[in-house]
Amino acid sequence: MYIRGDDRSPDQLRHIKIIRHWQSVGEASVLVSFGKTKVLCTATFDSEIPKWSKGTGKGWVTSEYEMLPRATWQRTKRESRLGKVGGRTYEISRLIARSLRAAVNLKVLGENQIVIDCDVLQADGGTRCASITGAWVALKDSLIWAKKQSLISNVDEVLQNQIAAVSVGIVNQTAVLDLPYDEDSKAQTDMNVVMTKSGEFVEIQGTAEGATFNQAELNELLKLANKGCQELMKIQNASFNV
Amino acid sequence: MYIRGDDRSPDQLRHIKIIRHWQSVGEASVLVSFGKTKVLCTATFDSEIPKWSKGTGKGWVTSEYEMLPRATWQRTKRESRLGKVGGRTYEISRLIARSLRAAVNLKVLGENQIVIDCDVLQADGGTRCASITGAWVALKDSLIWAKKQSLISNVDEVLQNQIAAVSVGIVNQTAVLDLPYDEDSKAQTDMNVVMTKSGEFVEIQGTAEGATFNQAELNELLKLANKGCQELMKIQNASFNV
Amino acid sequence: MYIRGDDRSPDQLRHIKIIRHWQSVGEASVLVSFGKTKVLCTATFDSEIPKWSKGTGKGWVTSEYEMLPRATWQRTKRESRLGKVGGRTYEISRLIARSLRAAVNLKVLGENQIVIDCDVLQADGGTRCASITGAWVALKDSLIWAKKQSLISNVDEVLQNQIAAVSVGIVNQTAVLDLPYDEDSKAQTDMNVVMTKSGEFVEIQGTAEGATFNQAELNELLKLANKGCQELMKIQNASFNV
Amino acid sequence: MYIRGDDRSPDQLRHIKIIRHWQSVGEASVLVSFGKTKVLCTATFDSEIPKWSKGTGKGWVTSEYEMLPRATWQRTKRESRLGKVGGRTYEISRLIARSLRAAVNLKVLGENQIVIDCDVLQADGGTRCASITGAWVALKDSLIWAKKQSLISNVDEVLQNQIAAVSVGIVNQTAVLDLPYDEDSKAQTDMNVVMTKSGEFVEIQGTAEGATFNQAELNELLKLANKGCQELMKIQNASFNV
Amino acid sequence: MYIRGDDRSPDQLRHIKIIRHWQSVGEASVLVSFGKTKVLCTATFDSEIPKWSKGTGKGWVTSEYEMLPRATWQRTKRESRLGKVGGRTYEISRLIARSLRAAVNLKVLGENQIVIDCDVLQADGGTRCASITGAWVALKDSLIWAKKQSLISNVDEVLQNQIAAVSVGIVNQTAVLDLPYDEDSKAQTDMNVVMTKSGEFVEIQGTAEGATFNQAELNELLKLANKGCQELMKIQNASFNV
Amino acid sequence: MYIRGDDRSPDQLRHIKIIRHWQSVGEASVLVSFGKTKVLCTATFDSEIPKWSKGTGKGWVTSEYEMLPRATWQRTKRESRLGKVGGRTYEISRLIARSLRAAVNLKVLGENQIVIDCDVLQADGGTRCASITGAWVALKDSLIWAKKQSLISNVDEVLQNQIAAVSVGIVNQTAVLDLPYDEDSKAQTDMNVVMTKSGEFVEIQGTAEGATFNQAELNELLKLANKGCQELMKIQNASFNV
Repeated sequence: MYIRGDDRSPDQLRHIKIIRHWQSVGEASVLVSFGKTKVLCTATFDSEIPKWSKGTGKGWVTSEYEMLPRATWQRTKRESRLGKVGGRTYEISRLIARSLRAAVNLKVLGENQIVIDCDVLQADGGTRCASITGAWVALKDSLIWAKKQSLISNVDEVLQNQIAAVSVGIVNQTAVLDLPYDEDSKAQTDMNVVMTKSGEFVEIQGTAEGATFNQAELNELLKLANKGCQELMKIQNASFNV
Repeated sequence: MYIRGDDRSPDQLRHIKIIRHWQSVGEASVLVSFGKTKVLCTATFDSEIPKWSKGTGKGWVTSEYEMLPRATWQRTKRESRLGKVGGRTYEISRLIARSLRAAVNLKVLGENQIVIDCDVLQADGGTRCASITGAWVALKDSLIWAKKQSLISNVDEVLQNQIAAVSVGIVNQTAVLDLPYDEDSKAQTDMNVVMTKSGEFVEIQGTAEGATFNQAELNELLKLANKGCQELMKIQNASFNV
Repeated sequence: MYIRGDDRSPDQLRHIKIIRHWQSVGEASVLVSFGKTKVLCTATFDSEIPKWSKGTGKGWVTSEYEMLPRATWQRTKRESRLGKVGGRTYEISRLIARSLRAAVNLKVLGENQIVIDCDVLQADGGTRCASITGAWVALKDSLIWAKKQSLISNVDEVLQNQIAAVSVGIVNQTAVLDLPYDEDSKAQTDMNVVMTKSGEFVEIQGTAEGATFNQAELNELLKLANKGCQELMKIQNASFNV
Repeated sequence: MYIRGDDRSPDQLRHIKIIRHWQSVGEASVLVSFGKTKVLCTATFDSEIPKWSKGTGKGWVTSEYEMLPRATWQRTKRESRLGKVGGRTYEISRLIARSLRAAVNLKVLGENQIVIDCDVLQADGGTRCASITGAWVALKDSLIWAKKQSLISNVDEVLQNQIAAVSVGIVNQTAVLDLPYDEDSKAQTDMNVVMTKSGEFVEIQGTAEGATFNQAELNELLKLANKGCQELMKIQNASFNV
Repeated sequence: MYIRGDDRSPDQLRHIKIIRHWQSVGEASVLVSFGKTKVLCTATFDSEIPKWSKGTGKGWVTSEYEMLPRATWQRTKRESRLGKVGGRTYEISRLIARSLRAAVNLKVLGENQIVIDCDVLQADGGTRCASITGAWVALKDSLIWAKKQSLISNVDEVLQNQIAAVSVGIVNQTAVLDLPYDEDSKAQTDMNVVMTKSGEFVEIQGTAEGATFNQAELNELLKLANKGCQELMKIQNASFNV
Repeated sequence: MYIRGDDRSPDQLRHIKIIRHWQSVGEASVLVSFGKTKVLCTATFDSEIPKWSKGTGKGWVTSEYEMLPRATWQRTKRESRLGKVGGRTYEISRLIARSLRAAVNLKVLGENQIVIDCDVLQADGGTRCASITGAWVALKDSLIWAKKQSLISNVDEVLQNQIAAVSVGIVNQTAVLDLPYDEDSKAQTDMNVVMTKSGEFVEIQGTAEGATFNQAELNELLKLANKGCQELMKIQNASFNV
């Protein structure tokens, strides 16, 4: 039987922590931790929208993800100094933005843009899922702020879905939830799942890293993901009731 | 009931065409068409591998995807002139490379690199799936070439899996196979699935564009994808028996 | 006596093929072949003109030339990935644009821009000449399209000149027409000539690669070029009478 | 008389906090706060040195400074997305590196490089001084780590100077210490001073923002800076005695 | 006692030369030499101001500094070809601009921008100080030109300060004025000082290159700098009385 | 009859000046003027050659051309700040390099590289021709230097050809030599010709700007170009006999 490095049961999340208003500046600043993974998520509510969106009556949600150079055990080079953003960074930024757009009714948002920044302060696997989970809280905070400024009329009408994200994977033939870097790097299959409160899917990104996977394994992974996402959403909600 | 724009039944592929040796230069050049979508896929067998791979005894498969400016109805700007590669381009390039790595036994490949180039000559939806499907044929051709050059000893030991890819989606509450641009742009859910001959999954990328999707819908989509991929693999194989 | 690798006589063109409407999208898409050299030329008719041109009542013709990475025997790196366009690419793009502007009456074109894209699908010498020759056909097709859209009132008044281009050079002391890569790389002198139907010059770009050339040699080369261009223009015209 | 916005006396520092090992990864990670200004400083000890330094027997200290997009009240654009690092960022990165090189005996360091990363998590004036002050602690921690790894033989021989930095300025004709953003933006003169334990200068960067300054004002500012730096060095030292 | 390489006394400037109207184009073109250091300074008076400045009624002064590749003994690579401007170039450009803004009353300048270009034709130390000293003359010439064009109403009201800059440093325990490259590279302390006619400071940038410096040394260096700047301002003024 | 703006006869050069050793640094520094056009040409003799050239026994000549921002009446933006080199700059850099390679016997040069820098200090038409003409002198000076350093054994064996370049064009139906900007901008045909002492051609670049040109006009232009180049070569030679 497979014993996880941190003694968690296969269907157990790491220690999750969500701290709202971590920065004293800005309308929405959330520090989210999935174990040792720490991401600072901010949401900027902006009345300036992209050109192609003007006059449509609809808003937009975009996102930029980045890692600090020493978020990792080995220092990685800064993309600003390299003069270009890498493929992985773009891919994750786009995933975060797509996921959060699914949480928002863009028509009700009106011609406003929300810019989500996810900066990984420490990386131990699952940074994209932590980013999405934290960003949803920041997004909500930015809407609460916008409501106070009378920029929108109702938070819940804009925020049509609650979403959270978690990674699942198959390690040593065992389906496990919320993989740290150590498990991630040896997983045969690796999947990131974004779900809603009602258990529907927003995004499924599954990759056969070492071995292909079949329908039965897929089903097992999605069941685990659902369990994880439901727990994460409780923690998201609890952060508003501190 | 939903009638498709091109009168196909929901589970029907577009007209698929695979032309090997389309260019007279190069070890592997494949022109693949999924209806009006046309992608030129080449595979370059290179004895030069990335630095981090040297001395590991293992090879690598990488990929670059790009669209010609007038592959589309509206001209898009060249990324070379913009001075940077866009997020979408990176995302697709990475998907193609990951998928094809799942087809290859990197240890048996030895310290060689295969570079897959997918250039979209005409785009009408499904370019990433056409790219993967065509690239598998080009990859095989490059291995046949390498075998002739005695750079590898056996094509089938290197090429451990046959793979193909197809898009599926939900349009007007109907699950459909192989979406052209027109359907793609109005799909509620959009999924790209890469599968093996034995019906296992290599990649699943599902996105709720307009509406989230549930387990039942997912299962229906994956069944369609399996049907499409199996047919595509027959066409791939037929291209070698001309 | 010098025998050419492909047994052509010194004053003979390679097999030339011009296919109009090669892509089903776009107002003008031409696949031109000079032997193994294949270039896809498109022309985009755009009502948006450069800033400095606004209010002048005159239009503009611009061009972008690029090679696919496996257009060549050895793979060349993508300029988009390098983050910058190379000097050779710029030089050829500018030559194509200048040549086609000489074909067009910019005043009669009015405040419209035509963007010529020349993408080399296969390169075996003479790509810039094939590009210009094919681009003229695409340019004409875009004007035919614009006339149908009532964006211009008369094709022939805008298209004041018919032009074609061919390379000539001195190989083994022999003046030859339309050099493939193999001859190009060993030519002492290499010249690209753009001419009009009436035999006037639009561009002459002659370079002493290995040995300088004198007036007599120049005259012989220009005579060859004239013969080649006149034949190319017949083929251009024939492509409209299919 | 001038009353400061936060009721400090003119020669009083903001609340200073230095937290070592803020990240659980890396050899040296320090979170430093000067009031609301928060900078994460890390030091990476690297056996790889720049080319021009190889074979000289001497080491090097370099630095990269950057601000998170929402470190500020208004979101600033990411330099990675802009594709280039701004002048201000370069200027501060170079100041930090020069200052810390003055703290280190590069010969005793041997052919090793220390890379200092200063990422501003929240910006309220004085970010470059906070960076230098925190970076010195991180630098020391990286040397303690290197000693444990037997990469250097003695921490104190490498770390020849203790340094700290503080801003001083003239606001409303009053010389003040450690200016927050609010004072910084209205200062007539603004100066950043880097000093050693023995009260010597490492760097003086004084700028007449609104009004030029004379020798008497300079002397008053430098006296204030000395007081501030001495207090900062006590806090640096205290952080090692927790 | 320390003998300087060029036999100057410690408080002596190199041979200074200021040639106005060096180029026949442009409103202001000044070739300034500090010994072998030669900088071409131009000032462009521009009615187009930066966006953030529009509507404020105030003008702006900006600057770009660059070195020719063979300004130096060893050829340095062109920043244009590297595709990015280096940190040193940015730092100096910013220093020149800040210094000259201190010379100008931006309100009286009105919504106009002056762009200072400083191109180092030959570099032998002190290029930033030569740039500032020459740029002040070019700036004045551009204002004289603007007055003639009735773009401003009075030169002296715009040009509120005369400024010049000089480097000072400690070499072999001796404080010296106006260091050539040879002294600069072995200086323990290196300082660039920008001053006004009335002896006030605009910028002080002092760096402990090899050894830290104390208050007494600072005072001695600033005294030298004042002497040098006053002499430079006489030469600036003389250039207008040729 | 056409009267030139500067009263020259149609076949007359502008006032030409060649100053060797203009910079006191570097092995070869030449300031060349064609009337108001001033270009600083340097040649750097480098034992480091491009990778693809190593082991061939042959050397290389390369070139970089650039204009100062205020070389022109209107300020042009710096390519370093734009982050990319423009097409015109590349085109001219390549022309200069090709032309000078024709002057050099690369085999006799051995595995050395000569880097030609041409920086336009003032631009009034004909900058590429002035660059080539001045660069030949700089190239010779760098070979004289290399001979003194015993890096080559004989200057004249390396420098197999003397070359110079001049522009010719048709203005108001009149063929004219050495066009200033004013004539250049209204020329119907514009041609740059690089020739050798023996009257052979190195490069011919002719462009129909406004009107196409015929063989008779071409011949007349080339005759003028020959006259101009022969005169320029006398001035080149005279510069060595000062």
